[in-house]
Amino acid sequence: MLVGATASMAVPAIAATSADAAPPAATSRGRGKGSGETRSITMYAEELDDGQIGYGLEPGEATIPGPILEMWEGDTLEIDLVNNTDERLSIHPHGVDYDVDSDGSPLNDSFNEPGERRTYVWTTREPFKGPKSMWMPGSAGYWHYHDHAMGTPHGTKGIRKGLYGALIVRRKGDILPDRQFTVVFNDMTINNKMAPDAPVFEARLGERVEFIAIGHGNTFHTFHIHAHRWADNRTGMLEGPNDPSPVIDNKDLNPGSSYGFQIIAGEGVGPGAWMYHCHVQFHSDDGMAGIFLVRNEDGTLPDGAQEALDRYHGHGSDE
Amino acid sequence: MLVGATASMAVPAIAATSADAAPPAATSRGRGKGSGETRSITMYAEELDDGQIGYGLEPGEATIPGPILEMWEGDTLEIDLVNNTDERLSIHPHGVDYDVDSDGSPLNDSFNEPGERRTYVWTTREPFKGPKSMWMPGSAGYWHYHDHAMGTPHGTKGIRKGLYGALIVRRKGDILPDRQFTVVFNDMTINNKMAPDAPVFEARLGERVEFIAIGHGNTFHTFHIHAHRWADNRTGMLEGPNDPSPVIDNKDLNPGSSYGFQIIAGEGVGPGAWMYHCHVQFHSDDGMAGIFLVRNEDGTLPDGAQEALDRYHGHGSDE
Amino acid sequence: MLVGATASMAVPAIAATSADAAPPAATSRGRGKGSGETRSITMYAEELDDGQIGYGLEPGEATIPGPILEMWEGDTLEIDLVNNTDERLSIHPHGVDYDVDSDGSPLNDSFNEPGERRTYVWTTREPFKGPKSMWMPGSAGYWHYHDHAMGTPHGTKGIRKGLYGALIVRRKGDILPDRQFTVVFNDMTINNKMAPDAPVFEARLGERVEFIAIGHGNTFHTFHIHAHRWADNRTGMLEGPNDPSPVIDNKDLNPGSSYGFQIIAGEGVGPGAWMYHCHVQFHSDDGMAGIFLVRNEDGTLPDGAQEALDRYHGHGSDE
Repeated sequence: MLVGATASMAVPAIAATSADAAPPAATSRGRGKGSGETRSITMYAEELDDGQIGYGLEPGEATIPGPILEMWEGDTLEIDLVNNTDERLSIHPHGVDYDVDSDGSPLNDSFNEPGERRTYVWTTREPFKGPKSMWMPGSAGYWHYHDHAMGTPHGTKGIRKGLYGALIVRRKGDILPDRQFTVVFNDMTINNKMAPDAPVFEARLGERVEFIAIGHGNTFHTFHIHAHRWADNRTGMLEGPNDPSPVIDNKDLNPGSSYGFQIIAGEGVGPGAWMYHCHVQFHSDDGMAGIFLVRNEDGTLPDGAQEALDRYHGHGSDE
Repeated sequence: MLVGATASMAVPAIAATSADAAPPAATSRGRGKGSGETRSITMYAEELDDGQIGYGLEPGEATIPGPILEMWEGDTLEIDLVNNTDERLSIHPHGVDYDVDSDGSPLNDSFNEPGERRTYVWTTREPFKGPKSMWMPGSAGYWHYHDHAMGTPHGTKGIRKGLYGALIVRRKGDILPDRQFTVVFNDMTINNKMAPDAPVFEARLGERVEFIAIGHGNTFHTFHIHAHRWADNRTGMLEGPNDPSPVIDNKDLNPGSSYGFQIIAGEGVGPGAWMYHCHVQFHSDDGMAGIFLVRNEDGTLPDGAQEALDRYHGHGSDE
Repeated sequence: MLVGATASMAVPAIAATSADAAPPAATSRGRGKGSGETRSITMYAEELDDGQIGYGLEPGEATIPGPILEMWEGDTLEIDLVNNTDERLSIHPHGVDYDVDSDGSPLNDSFNEPGERRTYVWTTREPFKGPKSMWMPGSAGYWHYHDHAMGTPHGTKGIRKGLYGALIVRRKGDILPDRQFTVVFNDMTINNKMAPDAPVFEARLGERVEFIAIGHGNTFHTFHIHAHRWADNRTGMLEGPNDPSPVIDNKDLNPGSSYGFQIIAGEGVGPGAWMYHCHVQFHSDDGMAGIFLVRNEDGTLPDGAQEALDRYHGHGSDE
């Protein structure tokens, strides 16, 4: 169901350029595929060298965002959270089921004191037939998890410092990607960084790439990616040629919201250094912009890409 | 079609803890079910004890938000609006049909002077076949009504003071809920209140609960509810297992927008005091948070719920 | 495929009251209908009399917004852009395919120096079957184009001054409208104007009217139109009576986002001066409001419309 030391997918040998590009070994691609499996993991919340705070699957390996957690509808995930900071914190998920003890909120007395270890249990389900011809929603979706206790009863300090990550619940039959990238617009940052230090996400031409976009903080944003687009529905693809879903390349990404989609890197447009950024003008100008670097199929850099990367890393100049 | 003195549904005997939990007798559950019925009601706009202003179905019974009005596609609603304040005001609906005389805007000279009684007529329709294979939208939806004349030509003062409410248009075959709650994010308030006085909505485990969420004012917001989720489409449920609608638990709720959904209280998660709140961090920290209290099936409080309510009412403290 | 000197549709002889109401000769209604046609146009970016900057299809004919460009899925559009200003600028599209040379961004060295002529190539495609039962999105949509180079690497100055316009990609079988209107919420303006100078869009009762709504700048907005509504999907209409798309009359319109829909002018509500406006209260009060004037079928003004127009043009007074 999740968090394997080995991933079930083949990943081409491109070094990720930042912690944001979830390395396969740190992801939690599920294998249960809805068989109703229960699996347990341990997560560690701890301070990073720069004073920010992240979640990790091993001590000393916390990242911002935290690891991508994955489940299949029907599965259960038990998270043993270890608080290695000196302030109370928690883990609160979106989208999945949990009882009040796993709410992750001080309201329900559900958090870890400093040094404390506490178990949170998340369950999922398939859609099921409700009254008349309606079906009740299942758990599948591009969700997220975050602190709900540090600093305020809503975890405002924990979130500001980096206690967040992506949570994917898949439905039987869903297509698995080659690469996954988490993009969090957290106030005026992307994954708590700003240009020229915002993530450079890398893929090869033709790879199936999954983006999980999450909003946090206090500011409104819109997420835009150049030269790629997706259907604004559960998967980002169409159920068929008559699926009425709008196709978009720009979407509001506001606090607490999340969505995801799969695209084929460079399809129809070729390789290159493609920008992704907040489309609020002052935000992109101030540094809410990064690069989705689509390499050639053989892993080499396409013409012009190095120059674009150099321009990006010189962000702040006229270019 | 609407506004019955007696509701057509059976409602368990739980006392609503606030005016926001529309008591059955004040709702307007329709009975015409699209038979093309015309029905007339009288609404009164008047000042409340605290200087705010609301709509009500009887003199002296104004609430904030106003009563939930319901229609079935095909029905007509005539509203005789009585202005018991000393400023001009109106009622402007979203989603339904009306001619310029019922626009509710000063632009079309459609408002009530102080003391004036004026009739507004709203009509509805089913979807109908348009050109080629396309269908033109019907009226069904989770809509709302509000003042469009007090203070400014857009009713900015009237809305700020509480002149707003939910309007539901149902389609033949739609499922009726056991309980209904209107949640209005109006600037930094929920239904013109803030924690610890924001609404505590109550239901019993397993009841079908309908939320109608409405945005007003000048600020951007996102609505989040703990431990429950809905499909982001017309009904909040799925048309079938292949319905591509995203399933969400957090959605932008900005001025003039509205949406609704039905959930089964506590399904898969159990009873408890579940938070709903704006997910903009400073907004929830400042008081845009309330409680969706899911009681046991027999109406008793589940373990821990009283403590959670006590913490909520102590909002502002460390918890 | 696009940009014809003559439009393929019949348009009743109503004079447009502003440049925002795209006159048929200036639109780019395609004729290729996905036959894979390649067509070339020249666009000119130039300063207007009032110091703002627009795109036009002929020298001296720049407008704000620029001309509506249209393609059919499968077609290619080559744009020869002439920069008649004294600052660098570009044209960057949403939704369509382009390689890095046509990105329109300084990051990819893709812009026009002052006086320079440069070709940008946009391609489109139909949806196509992907893995399993999923389909990859096609290009059809209500998109837009804008500068991405003037003032900042994101074109903040160019966009502020008016370098933007609508781009429509149609799918085979899509229904063509009688009239088209572009509505751009650009900071606190509509098409860089404010009431009482914001656009008055005109149509006759029963005409099929297409709105393309685009957001730009730094502020959040919601677009609302009185007495009309649309399905929140690709076309604004329903694929059939069971299409689960929500029907709305108010939608977030934030920087970089766009959507469109077709409505039948005055259907079910009659002719009249119908407001469209940002529903953020301070924004509409400050001038983000215009008129959708639905005339009688014979082109005459309906009762009360002149009075409403007079009130609108006196915006700022008590009315």
